[in-house]
Amino acid sequence: MKYFLFLVLLSTSFLSLAQSSPELRVNTDRLNNSIQTLSTYGKNAAGGSDRVAFSSHEVVARGYLMDLMRNAGLEVSVDFAGNIIGRRAGSNPSLKPIAFGSHIDEVPNGGDYDGPVGSMSAIEVMQTLSENNITTAHPLEAIIFTNEEGGVVGSRAIVGELNKKALQIVTNSGVTQYEGIKLLGGNPDRIPEVARKKGDLAAFLELHIEQGGNLDREKIQIGVVEGIVAIEWWQFTFKGTANHAGTTPMNMRKDALLPAAEFILAVNKIVKSYEGAQVGTVGKIEAFPGAGNVIPGEVKLNLELRDLSSEKIWKIYSQIEAKAKSLASEAGVEMTITHQEVASKPALADEGIRKIIGDQAKAMGFSTLSLPSGAGHDAQEMARIAPMGMIFIPSKNGISHAPSEYSSPENIANGANVLLHTIIQLDKILK
Amino acid sequence: MKYFLFLVLLSTSFLSLAQSSPELRVNTDRLNNSIQTLSTYGKNAAGGSDRVAFSSHEVVARGYLMDLMRNAGLEVSVDFAGNIIGRRAGSNPSLKPIAFGSHIDEVPNGGDYDGPVGSMSAIEVMQTLSENNITTAHPLEAIIFTNEEGGVVGSRAIVGELNKKALQIVTNSGVTQYEGIKLLGGNPDRIPEVARKKGDLAAFLELHIEQGGNLDREKIQIGVVEGIVAIEWWQFTFKGTANHAGTTPMNMRKDALLPAAEFILAVNKIVKSYEGAQVGTVGKIEAFPGAGNVIPGEVKLNLELRDLSSEKIWKIYSQIEAKAKSLASEAGVEMTITHQEVASKPALADEGIRKIIGDQAKAMGFSTLSLPSGAGHDAQEMARIAPMGMIFIPSKNGISHAPSEYSSPENIANGANVLLHTIIQLDKILK
Repeated sequence: MKYFLFLVLLSTSFLSLAQSSPELRVNTDRLNNSIQTLSTYGKNAAGGSDRVAFSSHEVVARGYLMDLMRNAGLEVSVDFAGNIIGRRAGSNPSLKPIAFGSHIDEVPNGGDYDGPVGSMSAIEVMQTLSENNITTAHPLEAIIFTNEEGGVVGSRAIVGELNKKALQIVTNSGVTQYEGIKLLGGNPDRIPEVARKKGDLAAFLELHIEQGGNLDREKIQIGVVEGIVAIEWWQFTFKGTANHAGTTPMNMRKDALLPAAEFILAVNKIVKSYEGAQVGTVGKIEAFPGAGNVIPGEVKLNLELRDLSSEKIWKIYSQIEAKAKSLASEAGVEMTITHQEVASKPALADEGIRKIIGDQAKAMGFSTLSLPSGAGHDAQEMARIAPMGMIFIPSKNGISHAPSEYSSPENIANGANVLLHTIIQLDKILK
Repeated sequence: MKYFLFLVLLSTSFLSLAQSSPELRVNTDRLNNSIQTLSTYGKNAAGGSDRVAFSSHEVVARGYLMDLMRNAGLEVSVDFAGNIIGRRAGSNPSLKPIAFGSHIDEVPNGGDYDGPVGSMSAIEVMQTLSENNITTAHPLEAIIFTNEEGGVVGSRAIVGELNKKALQIVTNSGVTQYEGIKLLGGNPDRIPEVARKKGDLAAFLELHIEQGGNLDREKIQIGVVEGIVAIEWWQFTFKGTANHAGTTPMNMRKDALLPAAEFILAVNKIVKSYEGAQVGTVGKIEAFPGAGNVIPGEVKLNLELRDLSSEKIWKIYSQIEAKAKSLASEAGVEMTITHQEVASKPALADEGIRKIIGDQAKAMGFSTLSLPSGAGHDAQEMARIAPMGMIFIPSKNGISHAPSEYSSPENIANGANVLLHTIIQLDKILK
């Protein structure tokens, strides 16, 4: 018995090693063809994708995708939250699965790459392993998450953070999350059963286009994501005195727009004064009453800060707050601040996984750059229950959420190959 | 015959001089009581005045006012534009009338003094002349203008500048100007017949509260208006690139709000850098798309400049324009400017009349200040056809167009007395 088991283990191990040579590559054409085919589901007249979550376009596209999964030898299921899970058994039943995937829903009039690149690459990786007769020790799961664009709904369900209130939100398809999940074959009343505990997965990986221009600008092939940034929002209100713009002398005014303008410039200056990739934005401004012949009595501004470190965000914020207070005081106006709940916590990538991604990319001759993700992803949620890694590929001019979104077939294949070899490497290392 | 005429002239002249002694004063109580009575027409629960033009409140109040005029011995008529004209004959039929007046319509939820002070003082001046048996050489006209707050409608008709298009505007009362003028007893189809030519009036005077805080702050009793300012409007558009606020690094942004903020501060600085009473305001700002998580791609701002001199306005503007261009260029964004038609030309007060107003005020022991009017008035229109003078009295804290508008009975009487003696003096001087 022992001898037989040894031989079996030896032969399995031999087979895996033989087939998972460093030269192993995904099929570039097949992968890009599947992305192109997927893009036909929901294409609109403007060339954009209207494959919003829960639309009939998405439902039909999911059928296509599940067929591809079955062809790749996966055991396909839809969980109660509507997530598609394609499972491939491992040789060691005591090991937890290594999961990877992304989403195929798009924003209205979106592009063909934000989500599909990671989704179709996950299936292509499975197909490549299958046709090379490679059996990993860990079970593998390709997960296509429900309604990423509408609030990372599927991944929230998996980490046990999707509350009932969120199910009542009306989505871009016109139906509520609750109704939509039913349309996908899920069961919204049993979503709590979908939740996995910390340790239920050995690792989670996501390949995605960079929704920003760093890689494209620097001609870098692979981005090793450091983590997904935290987001904090505040509303600042400067309150002066609205008055007649004709009869109020310049030196008698309490124009709320003047300290507000100083504030906008101060935010930019303070955020830039720190080393690192933090960003700060005033994206919204309203002046009241908002008439050309009335001095603004009140101005409301939104401040957004993002960084991988919440501590750094709050350090920068405290400097902005102090500046805003002194601007208000100098201008003789009142100021109030409201911190707004956006529930976007930072998610750091696992250091070990980051190293493997970088090493595998370099081993294949790709240039790499470590960078944070300024946008949210399913990986951000999954990091709550598993060591997480994220791979970025360039998006032309950093464009996303628009019909002009584009990643080249080569860059897509590079990303899929890094995903493939990261999985193989993790499979060897992780217990 | 000649002897008789001489005697008559002598006796008339003697009478006038005797009665128009420097000690002649209006009846302070009667004047303030009439203003208080007028304020009851259209008083709302919040204590403000809803006596908007063409409202039933106004129609009833006009009846009260015409009764007062008749009691003062005036010949009362309503012209085709709805203006109330109370006429008092002069001793010299070859002379043109000296006219004076204001309006009794208010903005919605307005105050009790903007308009009524000048209107009721005009009637009180007539009453004072009557009870002192003073006959001026010139005919006198007290004019209560139609819908001043809705575009100086009545005075525009008198100077021949009210076009048919303006009659179709729906007013605050809910009816069009056309319908409203009919409600007042006018005939909107015959408005052109109301127009007077340059020289048809010997002079026009208006007493009004200062819609600004200069007199109140400086504790000055009488404002000698230098003229009514010109107003120019422009819209500035800064056009950068809207982008993801999370994924776009600080140094890759074309944030249109940054040069816009610099622009707001530059306008304030440039306008203040000139000597004089000019004012410049950015009262309206819009950032697009206007979301907290999107870098503003476009910002639109309104610029308003006011001054007595159009030349000065354009000089200041050209400096602002140059600054805006350099700000846009430094920020690497585009900028466009649209000049907007507001049709508000400057109207200078007649220098001779200004001197008489100032002299009469000082002769009665009042402190005076020469100042421009930053707000528009009927006098601005009337200046097109007659030498114009305007008298301001203090308004508490410079407030107008609000229920808290207030001028003291003493200040109101002071203004009416300056109006009275300015008329008497003009009557002596003007041919």
